[in-house]
Amino acid sequence: GLIGGSIALEIKKQKLAHQVVGYNRSKKGREIALRRGGCDQVYSDPREAVRGADLVVLAIPVLKIPALAQQIGKALQPGTIVTDVGSTKENLVRKIHKIFPSEVIYIGGHPIAGTEQSGMEAAQLELFEDRWWIFTPIRSDAKTKNGIRKLKILVENLGAKFVQMSPQEHDHALAAISHLPHMIAFSLVDAVLKEKGGKFLKVSGRSFKDFTRVASSSGEMWGDICLDNRSALLKMMDHFEVSFQTLKKLVSQGDHRKLENFFYNISSVRKKLS
Amino acid sequence: GLIGGSIALEIKKQKLAHQVVGYNRSKKGREIALRRGGCDQVYSDPREAVRGADLVVLAIPVLKIPALAQQIGKALQPGTIVTDVGSTKENLVRKIHKIFPSEVIYIGGHPIAGTEQSGMEAAQLELFEDRWWIFTPIRSDAKTKNGIRKLKILVENLGAKFVQMSPQEHDHALAAISHLPHMIAFSLVDAVLKEKGGKFLKVSGRSFKDFTRVASSSGEMWGDICLDNRSALLKMMDHFEVSFQTLKKLVSQGDHRKLENFFYNISSVRKKLS
Repeated sequence: GLIGGSIALEIKKQKLAHQVVGYNRSKKGREIALRRGGCDQVYSDPREAVRGADLVVLAIPVLKIPALAQQIGKALQPGTIVTDVGSTKENLVRKIHKIFPSEVIYIGGHPIAGTEQSGMEAAQLELFEDRWWIFTPIRSDAKTKNGIRKLKILVENLGAKFVQMSPQEHDHALAAISHLPHMIAFSLVDAVLKEKGGKFLKVSGRSFKDFTRVASSSGEMWGDICLDNRSALLKMMDHFEVSFQTLKKLVSQGDHRKLENFFYNISSVRKKLS
Repeated sequence: GLIGGSIALEIKKQKLAHQVVGYNRSKKGREIALRRGGCDQVYSDPREAVRGADLVVLAIPVLKIPALAQQIGKALQPGTIVTDVGSTKENLVRKIHKIFPSEVIYIGGHPIAGTEQSGMEAAQLELFEDRWWIFTPIRSDAKTKNGIRKLKILVENLGAKFVQMSPQEHDHALAAISHLPHMIAFSLVDAVLKEKGGKFLKVSGRSFKDFTRVASSSGEMWGDICLDNRSALLKMMDHFEVSFQTLKKLVSQGDHRKLENFFYNISSVRKKLS
């Protein structure tokens, strides 16, 4: 899809690997991968795709990764580095470590990149430029450390900024900076549709469109993320509700000084993010 | 400031007026206006600035417009077209019509443009390119129609898309597509700060920054808007709360099919906005 395809295109373009081999369950996906030049070969059987590989990147929706890991486990050669790009990490990393033979070096990963589009057709060069790429290893043996070192070099070559944290910290961070904003964007579009059937969408400008762009993301993927990161997400949704209700109360009271202070304090923090 | 300065720069650049005269209460503002070439003259007294003008644009924070209108009312020559760029219209338009002599042709206006920045220093060319510029006339006599026609030509020359609606409809539309999203962005930053003192802001990516950029806007301006459009804004905030609570309930129930449907229905609408 978008992420796996973009990784492949960039690796091929920069000649970072001798060979890039793809797997896609759909014939159309396989054809696009070859046509766009992201892969040297593409297989419909993931076991064939991973045979002899030094590095395997599992780039499919997060809830489907364990089943794929199960399929390829025995086809991986000892010492292969495996990572994934799943949007949530805590449950996944625990499951994957149980599935893979111990000679496989698995290190969970997540590039904070992507667009509201999906599919190999949307794959693009420079998708990872200046984006965070989080890795969530839970082992600290020499082989894992070596694997992390190699992945760091790879993603920095792809233009990304490497960062390492625990799977739990990853999920809490993503609930805050990504999953909550997505829930908000979906809710905002829903709220505007509630008022006169959404007629005001007609005059929406660039800022409203930018603000709600993520609300055109895949329903399936967001269903997965909500289930897989439910507790961290609900915690952040609770925080947000408290903040929003506080503000609503200030608007309702109509005290200009209090409103101005509320906005001023937040904008001071936000400005520092540039 | 940003809006008035950008209008002036664009009018001068395109030679749409014989003369552009500015008013700014601060010495620094007046100096910048002259240095950047937006104005031929700049005055500290608004009565001097409007003397002999064919068109006057009141580009100051919305709650300050009535006092300025009071000051300049008697200095305007009969037949002068006056518009403003205030973010809310219903209260304002009613007040202004009571202030100006009947020979003045006042037509409320609002360009849906702007950035999170403010001040004459931030003024820029092409700020209005492809943006809506809403006009909210409440009279329909020949002079007003002629004024609207002239304003339409002007703003289209500035690159904007002209649209006309009632002051009330303007305020409801803006509550939906602008004021509510701003309240949400401020609340989101506040919510993320509630979790571990905002440490997750560190890994925030481009999408979080885009999403919350408006939360670095001026506290004073947003205090004004909240007060002046309170009832329409509170209605939209209520709608949003209902939508957000519905989604939170779905996340909490953990029913993938229902979540996916919720997201799918919204994303189908959102995609049409492009």
